[in-house]
Amino acid sequence: MSFQKLDELGHKLEALEHALAILGADEATHMAVGGGEKRAEAMSSLAGMLHRQATAPEIGDWIAAAEAERLGEEQLAAVRELRRQYTNLTCLQVEFVERQTVARMRSEQLWRDLRAKNDWAGFQPALEGVVTLVREEAALRADALGLAPYDALMEQYDPGNRAADITPVFAELKAFLKDFLPRALAAQEARLAKQPLKPLSGSYAVEKQRELGLAMMAAVGFDLTHGSLSVSHHPFCGGVPSDVRITTRYKTSDFLSALMGVLHETGHALYEQNLPKAWSHWPLGKARGMAVHESQSLFVEKQIGRNPAFWRWALPVVEKHLGEAWSLDDILPHVHHVERGLIRVDADEVTYPLHVILRYELEQELVSGSLEVADLPEAWDAKMRDYLGLSTIDNPADGPMQDVHWPGAAFGYFPSYTLGAMMAAQQWAALTREHPSADQDLAKGDFGAVNGWRRDRIWSRGSRWSTPELLERATGEKLDAVYFTEHLRKRYGN
Amino acid sequence: MSFQKLDELGHKLEALEHALAILGADEATHMAVGGGEKRAEAMSSLAGMLHRQATAPEIGDWIAAAEAERLGEEQLAAVRELRRQYTNLTCLQVEFVERQTVARMRSEQLWRDLRAKNDWAGFQPALEGVVTLVREEAALRADALGLAPYDALMEQYDPGNRAADITPVFAELKAFLKDFLPRALAAQEARLAKQPLKPLSGSYAVEKQRELGLAMMAAVGFDLTHGSLSVSHHPFCGGVPSDVRITTRYKTSDFLSALMGVLHETGHALYEQNLPKAWSHWPLGKARGMAVHESQSLFVEKQIGRNPAFWRWALPVVEKHLGEAWSLDDILPHVHHVERGLIRVDADEVTYPLHVILRYELEQELVSGSLEVADLPEAWDAKMRDYLGLSTIDNPADGPMQDVHWPGAAFGYFPSYTLGAMMAAQQWAALTREHPSADQDLAKGDFGAVNGWRRDRIWSRGSRWSTPELLERATGEKLDAVYFTEHLRKRYGN
Repeated sequence: MSFQKLDELGHKLEALEHALAILGADEATHMAVGGGEKRAEAMSSLAGMLHRQATAPEIGDWIAAAEAERLGEEQLAAVRELRRQYTNLTCLQVEFVERQTVARMRSEQLWRDLRAKNDWAGFQPALEGVVTLVREEAALRADALGLAPYDALMEQYDPGNRAADITPVFAELKAFLKDFLPRALAAQEARLAKQPLKPLSGSYAVEKQRELGLAMMAAVGFDLTHGSLSVSHHPFCGGVPSDVRITTRYKTSDFLSALMGVLHETGHALYEQNLPKAWSHWPLGKARGMAVHESQSLFVEKQIGRNPAFWRWALPVVEKHLGEAWSLDDILPHVHHVERGLIRVDADEVTYPLHVILRYELEQELVSGSLEVADLPEAWDAKMRDYLGLSTIDNPADGPMQDVHWPGAAFGYFPSYTLGAMMAAQQWAALTREHPSADQDLAKGDFGAVNGWRRDRIWSRGSRWSTPELLERATGEKLDAVYFTEHLRKRYGN
Repeated sequence: MSFQKLDELGHKLEALEHALAILGADEATHMAVGGGEKRAEAMSSLAGMLHRQATAPEIGDWIAAAEAERLGEEQLAAVRELRRQYTNLTCLQVEFVERQTVARMRSEQLWRDLRAKNDWAGFQPALEGVVTLVREEAALRADALGLAPYDALMEQYDPGNRAADITPVFAELKAFLKDFLPRALAAQEARLAKQPLKPLSGSYAVEKQRELGLAMMAAVGFDLTHGSLSVSHHPFCGGVPSDVRITTRYKTSDFLSALMGVLHETGHALYEQNLPKAWSHWPLGKARGMAVHESQSLFVEKQIGRNPAFWRWALPVVEKHLGEAWSLDDILPHVHHVERGLIRVDADEVTYPLHVILRYELEQELVSGSLEVADLPEAWDAKMRDYLGLSTIDNPADGPMQDVHWPGAAFGYFPSYTLGAMMAAQQWAALTREHPSADQDLAKGDFGAVNGWRRDRIWSRGSRWSTPELLERATGEKLDAVYFTEHLRKRYGN
């Protein structure tokens, strides 16, 4: 029976994925500094085995045969999702993938060097090479999937997301933010004029911050028998659902930096830990995609973790672990600080979407060919001045060279960040309609009902539905910018 | 070219070995407690891939073709060692291996349960099943390798080791120890009567012990850019040569326990870190076998780490990290403590070989069929009384049920422990003939010449020669018990 063959294949692929996930997390946390070369060799070889085994031609026949078998509804969903993955994995010729891998690795290496030197001219030819290949990739994917080129790229990260749906929502959000950002900054200034900022004391021992992080993780629902917290240079959530590895990095001067990072990664981890276990070796049992994943991390970091109600409960926990008492009025200006800046990863809730929308607009033009790489610095600078009132024309390292995504040929990924933020707000709104006491729950440190809703509507669904369908089934509505804009207005307005 | 095909195969196998080694070390050190089931699934699947890829029928053809190619001397050695490994891996039918795996896993599980209950009668049938299969395995291996059955089992762990060579050496050692042990105990008693034991203060913070361990590792030659020290329930040396993971466990009451463990595992680690890197993906580049590996760990733990000269240098290091000053006369009675005991893993340098020789003698009889499992408790007890003056007849849990080796079907492994101890003593003797100042070097904490000799004679040789040939080339002589007995006489006599 072909379904059975696919099931057995799934177990083999899961073993290789398990190895790659743990080796990857280990590399960033526990590996000896000199172990990198051999680790890279091993992981590249294992990734090759995984790709070969996941794209073998007979799998296409098994899928077709399984589709004709008498299967239950859930099994049919499993086969459907497997076909989607198989098509996405096999629509590029090996020859093309190899060519693109070489170009991408060269461009990423160059980017690391030249970004540090703020050398756009040196980097431009490499990025041109990447963009040429991305245009080719988009055309190949579009052809195989019957989608528009940019949609075919997004399809890798968020199945079902289409520019035709996203663009109007982003346009509404952009219009709101261009108006709202100056007002939020003025409101912040007015509040600080009334009550000056109480600075962080600036001496928080790493071990105490770690204990605080673990206490918060556990309270919010992280299962510490199936995961752990370590330190790495860049925070991440990795590992496997039975053993989720999250990391943070500590500054002794600022406990909020590590703590908010821990909450963000805990959001990712809750999703992984609560996926449907019976399907863990099928695509059906995996997290839906990048935007939904980001909605889960931002749900914990922003909807819960920056909610004033949450801080009513959290402040005594902070005091217990760090020995420092804060009032709500003193901590919230730190938690809700808004600032215009050039760097996306340092941006706050209000400014972050403008960074993303800028990239979303530019990368569509790069893919379609209406913008060339040579004209990118000017195009970037124009939008940066328009959206955030800042210029990067003399500073490409903090402009079009600031992210690894484009040098790494990842086009179609950026919108996921802001879609995640909007979906988190929409989920919180839907949840509070059903559980009007959610704020009071947070103030008591009771996350049971909140997590129950998320488990039922998101986590347990795995990859059963496309990204937009999952959101609509969970919240009763298609993506609507109003929930996110209302959230920002309430938290950052005056 | 077939050599090239084998070389490419080696890289694939090395990637899977890398994954298994890191996943194994991770499981014992950093894995979440609930991650075990999925980890076992993944590792079992990867081990299956490794076995299938390492035993594919075409490899036999490639080896035969490579043997006929124009190869350099080192390449020929590489092919020779690969053939040896391939023969050892393929001489059992898959059907037999599966049958034995089931019996072994059942017997290991039963052993864990029933050892805790001291229930020999319940365990006996399972061990009988294992022994029946081991006799079958020994016959199959003997047939494939042209060796005697017990030699064919040992060949898996120490290529070239033969009972005909080992038995007379062990007989000489046994005769020596039966006479020497009572005299060493009397000498110890006389010394303690003159100068009473100064007890350990009993309060050693784990973090300080860890710093001491790291300092000792680094001093003795462990490359901390290619390895690390963690905590695990049972100390081990794992990982890969580019990233060697050693572990220890800490008692706050006794710093020597963790420290001697760290030195032991550092001995294993030095071997792994200094293997020939160019051949790391061929059997030729791997450590020679269990006895040689144990000779390296015991070299560091016993020949160096319990040498009074070493402690002249080590005591100030201990004082620096633990804040406790010791005189040589006060510490050596702890480092050189001798005691008759039932448990092999708790035994000291003097009594340990008697535990091993007892098992070596009994397991040969079990394999040949001259001893049946039903008669094992009596046979064990008789030897235990003869060699160590202790009885286990009412205590099988601390008698024939004490080790996992036999329940796990590992027959032919036990001699490696004592062969390692003897080889370490013979290596130290050969080294001091060439470097008469070795003791003075240790007293200065200078391990350069000592490690240089070992790198040249042992580490860099990989699996170039059989176990006895490696020893003979390194020390100029075949295995001779006199070096070990002289070592014991000097350290533990009066």
